[in-house]
Amino acid sequence: MTNYYAVLDRNLVAVDCVIFGYDIWDKELKLLLIKRNFEPESGKWSLPGGFVRKDEGVLEAACRVLYQLTGFKDVYMEQSFAWGDVKRDSGGRVITISHFALIKAHELDPVMIDASAAHWRSISRIPKLIFDHKEIIERAHKELIDRIKVKPVGFELLPEKFTLVQLQDLYEAIYQRKIDKRNFRKKIIYMNLLEKLDEKEKETSKKGAYYYRFIPSRYEDFRRQGFYFNLDVQ
Amino acid sequence: MTNYYAVLDRNLVAVDCVIFGYDIWDKELKLLLIKRNFEPESGKWSLPGGFVRKDEGVLEAACRVLYQLTGFKDVYMEQSFAWGDVKRDSGGRVITISHFALIKAHELDPVMIDASAAHWRSISRIPKLIFDHKEIIERAHKELIDRIKVKPVGFELLPEKFTLVQLQDLYEAIYQRKIDKRNFRKKIIYMNLLEKLDEKEKETSKKGAYYYRFIPSRYEDFRRQGFYFNLDVQ
Repeated sequence: MTNYYAVLDRNLVAVDCVIFGYDIWDKELKLLLIKRNFEPESGKWSLPGGFVRKDEGVLEAACRVLYQLTGFKDVYMEQSFAWGDVKRDSGGRVITISHFALIKAHELDPVMIDASAAHWRSISRIPKLIFDHKEIIERAHKELIDRIKVKPVGFELLPEKFTLVQLQDLYEAIYQRKIDKRNFRKKIIYMNLLEKLDEKEKETSKKGAYYYRFIPSRYEDFRRQGFYFNLDVQ
Repeated sequence: MTNYYAVLDRNLVAVDCVIFGYDIWDKELKLLLIKRNFEPESGKWSLPGGFVRKDEGVLEAACRVLYQLTGFKDVYMEQSFAWGDVKRDSGGRVITISHFALIKAHELDPVMIDASAAHWRSISRIPKLIFDHKEIIERAHKELIDRIKVKPVGFELLPEKFTLVQLQDLYEAIYQRKIDKRNFRKKIIYMNLLEKLDEKEKETSKKGAYYYRFIPSRYEDFRRQGFYFNLDVQ
């Protein structure tokens, strides 16, 4: 049917996954990295990735990479950017489409990570990576920062119940800076998206702190009334 | 060198350009569309696009498409999204990376447009388009709306000098709704990014309205002092 298409250049297309994870106890935003097991750059640190097959959608390929590595299917995943420089991959001309995913680190099976030779590394201590993977991570991290200010996606990284301190810890770990406690609490309480539970977290302090949980249906009502999520604090 | 890469599926990769244009006199956000001149879907309305060559970067390909159509080289261009569904193009498996560009419609040579069989169409009256091009436009339009609220990119669409009414007309044309005049003026004046000129626009009213111009260096100072551009008004 399409002679015109038949004579055109074809390119290798890949997906790379920036998999962010968080654990409320060590309060660090982490990334799941792997040691690459094929040439070029075999044995070096890399983002998890794969090549898009001709019968496979781009998002589908990113989900496949994530599933093979973590066993997770239903996680927050967002396309980040298509990296198209001719010389970005020393093995050939590869256009890669980066994605970022948010997972609760404590839900990931350590045996599964081990089997994949994957490792959690703190966003503040990323090892030297192949190709442009550092730039890919920096962009995804900036996008995550922009996103959590205006959408309640941060909750994807928390367990179902969390204290307000734990929520603030998460935001500080993502922003990589301290934020004003009073302002933060005022903003999150004001939006009325959280339900306060009758239960306290008592490991951190003697007095304890109430657990909260995020109620997605309250967020939908909030949006329907024309309000915007806003946790942009100094 | 790379036997592993050699056996992998290769895909056609394209770029599509959502070229937004604006003219202060007719106050409409427009799109530059073309009639496709190859099969499949020859003769139908389409976004301007092209296939990425193996020795060409993705951004480079988008700039080539824009240049061939408009003769413009230095315009605001931003990557929008990589569209990767297997069946999105009826001619074959094509992954397309959409971009949006902002151009001052009055600077575009009508002879050049005619030669390319391109046409300006108002964003409010887009004809039926091939494949997923409508969706591509909708996404780029949403991204443009998000962008002009928080970055001074709207000025890319205006002539060097403009009145505050003309600036508001632009925002209303992009948002596709009326906005509050007092709030809008207050916000833009408060940021102190515009220089008021000693000259009036007198075609629209007898009394006339002062011209302003956007000073990029003031915006840089503003950002350096930790402020954010904000023209998000109801």
